[in-house]
Amino acid sequence: MHIPIAQRMGRLGTETAFAVSWEASILARQGKKIYPFHLGDMNIPTPENIIQATIEAIRKGKTGYAPTAGIIELREALAEDVGRSHGLKLGIENVSIQPGGKPTIGKFIMVAMNPGDKVLYPNPGYPIYESQIEFHGGQGLPYGYKEGEGCFLLDMEAIYRGIKEGAKLLIYNNYQNPTGASSPKAEMAELARLAVENDLFVLADEAYYDIRYSGEPLSIASFPGMAERTVILYTFSKKFAMTGWRLGAAIGPAPFIENISKINVNDESCANHFIQYGALAGLKGSAAGPQAILATLKERRDVLVDLLNDIPGIRCFKPEATFYLFPNVTEAMQRKGINDVEEFRQICLRETGVSFCTRRHFGRPLPGEKEQYVRFAYSGIEVADIKEGMAKLAAFLRA
Amino acid sequence: MHIPIAQRMGRLGTETAFAVSWEASILARQGKKIYPFHLGDMNIPTPENIIQATIEAIRKGKTGYAPTAGIIELREALAEDVGRSHGLKLGIENVSIQPGGKPTIGKFIMVAMNPGDKVLYPNPGYPIYESQIEFHGGQGLPYGYKEGEGCFLLDMEAIYRGIKEGAKLLIYNNYQNPTGASSPKAEMAELARLAVENDLFVLADEAYYDIRYSGEPLSIASFPGMAERTVILYTFSKKFAMTGWRLGAAIGPAPFIENISKINVNDESCANHFIQYGALAGLKGSAAGPQAILATLKERRDVLVDLLNDIPGIRCFKPEATFYLFPNVTEAMQRKGINDVEEFRQICLRETGVSFCTRRHFGRPLPGEKEQYVRFAYSGIEVADIKEGMAKLAAFLRA
Repeated sequence: MHIPIAQRMGRLGTETAFAVSWEASILARQGKKIYPFHLGDMNIPTPENIIQATIEAIRKGKTGYAPTAGIIELREALAEDVGRSHGLKLGIENVSIQPGGKPTIGKFIMVAMNPGDKVLYPNPGYPIYESQIEFHGGQGLPYGYKEGEGCFLLDMEAIYRGIKEGAKLLIYNNYQNPTGASSPKAEMAELARLAVENDLFVLADEAYYDIRYSGEPLSIASFPGMAERTVILYTFSKKFAMTGWRLGAAIGPAPFIENISKINVNDESCANHFIQYGALAGLKGSAAGPQAILATLKERRDVLVDLLNDIPGIRCFKPEATFYLFPNVTEAMQRKGINDVEEFRQICLRETGVSFCTRRHFGRPLPGEKEQYVRFAYSGIEVADIKEGMAKLAAFLRA
Repeated sequence: MHIPIAQRMGRLGTETAFAVSWEASILARQGKKIYPFHLGDMNIPTPENIIQATIEAIRKGKTGYAPTAGIIELREALAEDVGRSHGLKLGIENVSIQPGGKPTIGKFIMVAMNPGDKVLYPNPGYPIYESQIEFHGGQGLPYGYKEGEGCFLLDMEAIYRGIKEGAKLLIYNNYQNPTGASSPKAEMAELARLAVENDLFVLADEAYYDIRYSGEPLSIASFPGMAERTVILYTFSKKFAMTGWRLGAAIGPAPFIENISKINVNDESCANHFIQYGALAGLKGSAAGPQAILATLKERRDVLVDLLNDIPGIRCFKPEATFYLFPNVTEAMQRKGINDVEEFRQICLRETGVSFCTRRHFGRPLPGEKEQYVRFAYSGIEVADIKEGMAKLAAFLRA
C-alpha cells in the first residue's frame, strides 16, 4: 500500500523547539524539577473581562458561523485601535480576522509570492517564515542580527545584498523573537527607505508590538510610503494572554486583505465566532488586564537579565520588548569545554533542570557566525522559579 | 504602488453561495421577509453539556496553547468513537484535531497531491474541493450524480473515465452536499473496489455522517483495503450544532496524519484549546443533545420534502441524511418561461422571499447536463417559516 506524500512536504519545516518541550517533559516525569524557559507560551491568566464577554456570547448563541473576515465590530475596533497606535487611517476593509497570529504568515506568502520569488527573512527568527517560503516554492534570503551598543541590530549588509539579488518581499519581525531586538528609529527608517525605493512588499510581524516595557512604539507601517506596502501580523495572543484562544488578524492594503480573506473561505471558513466578542471586550474595555500582564512580565525580565549577567561567561542585553532574552553564551561554553550549543543546552537541562532553546531552533546558522546564543523565554515561569533555576545554572557553570 | 498578487490566487475559487446571503440580507434590510433556505449554517443551539464543559475549561485556565494535533483526551475519544461507528481500529496517531471540518480538505490536498496530479471530485459538490485542487496546481476531474429510483446515484461512468485518465486521488462526500445523496451499499463497494484496484488515495468527507435519519450508516473507510488509503474528514459542526466553534479532525493512516499535523504547526499552531474540552464532553456525554438536533432536522425535512413535491413542476427526493434537498426544477422553470436557473433563483427570491442556492453554486455545469436543480438547506429555518415560505413559493409558481 502506497501512501502518497507530495514533494512539497519535503520542503516544509517545523518548530524544532517542540523537541525541547518533549525532552523537558520526559525529565519532569522522571521527577526532575524543570525550569521552563523554552516555552513561548504564557502562564498568565486571560483578563476576566474577556472571559466574561466570551461566555456571554456563547450564552447569546453566537455559535453559528462568523463572517469569513471576522465580525464587523471586531474589525472596526481593530482598525481603530491599530490605526491610532500606528498613526494610520484604517477601516474594516483593511482587517481580516484570523484563527491566531500565525495564519497570517502562510497566507501572506501564498498571496504575495510566486514560486521562485526571493524573500528576505530574519535568521535567527521564527522558523515558520523560512518553512512557509520554501513550502510554497520561494527562495528565502536570510538576514541576521549583530550585537550593537546595548541591543541587537539588523545586519543591514545582508539586507542590501538580498535586495541586489532581487528580493521582492521582506519579512520583518519587530519586536523580535528570539533576539528581543527592537530597531532604533534610524534603522527602521533606513529599512523603510529601502522598501520604498526597491518596491519591496513587507510582512511586519508585530506579534510583540504591545509587549513593550519602555521606549517609543515604532512600526515600519507608519513610515512614509509604507502603509500601502505593509501587511501587519496582529495577534491577541500576547497582549491579552490568549495564546490558546487562537485569534489574530492580517491588517494591510484592502486589495491584499481581500485576497487573504478569500483564503480564509477556502482554508477554515472563519475564526471561532464567540471568542471574537471576548477579544472585542479586550480592545474596548479597561486596559488594566494588559497592564497587569506587562507588569508581571517586566518583573520577570528584570530579575532574569540581572541573574544571567551575573553568570561568568554569559552576557545578555535587556530588551525593551518581547518576553525573550538571547544571551551570548560563547564564553560559558568555552569554560565548560563544550563546542556545540545543542550539547550545551542538553547538559544544562540534564544537570540543572533549566530548559531553554538555542539559536539552532531559529534557523540554520549563517556563514561566518561564530558567537553562540541561547534563547530564554520568561512568559511561562514565575519569579521564584527564575531565581531558583538561575541559582542552579550559575552553580553548574561556575563549577 | 504595486501590490503583488501571486498567480496561484487566480486559481483560487470561493463559495459563491455567500453572494446569495448578501442578496437576501439586502432585501431583508429593505423590509422583505426572507425564508433562508440558502444557509448551510444551523439555527439550533449547541447542547448544554458542551457549553458547560467549555466554560469550565476556560475557568480551569485551558487558555494556553494546545498540542498541535489536539489534546490527547479528545484524540483518544475520537479514535474510539469513530473506530466504533466505522468498525476500525484507531489510536491517537490516527487523529489530528483541526480548527473546523474544512481545513482537512486543503491539508489533504497539500499532503497528497503533487502539481499536475489528477483528482476525482464531486460536481455538483462542495466548491472548496475544486478550488483547493486547482490552487495547489492539481487537475480536477469532476464526476456528477444522476437521478435513480428515489435517490441520486454516482455517475460511475465519469469515475471509470477519470481512473483511465490517471486519477491518483478521489474525493468522495457521502452523505453529500448539495444533493443529499447517500450511496447504496453496492455502489460504495464498487467505489472501494476501484480505489483498491487502482491505488487511489481517498478523502472521505463525512461532515454529514451523523446527520442520518434512517438507513444503515456506511463509510468507504470500512470496506476491505480502504482504511489504509482513506482520510476521513470529521467535524463537530453538524452533529453537535457547533458550526461557529470551528472544530473538526482529520482521521486516517498514521504516516499521513503526521504530515497533516506538521501543516498544523506551520499554518495555525493548534485549534482553540478550551473548546476541545467542550467537544470531549459532547463525545463522552449523553446522546440527548445530538438526538434532539436530529429530531428537529427530521421534522423540517419531512415537512419541506412534501411541500416541495406539492408544487407543480418540482420533484424532490427524500434523502436519508444531510440537511439538504436538491429538487429538480426543470419543469417549474419551463412553466415560468425561465431558462436560466440563476434567474429563476433571483425571481423566486424577489417575488416570494424564499432564498435558496442553485446547482451553479456547487461547480461548473458538466457537459450534457440538461436538468435544472436548486438546493434547499433546512438547517437554519423553523417549521413554521418553512410552511409559510413554501406557501408563497407555491402560489408564485402556480400563478
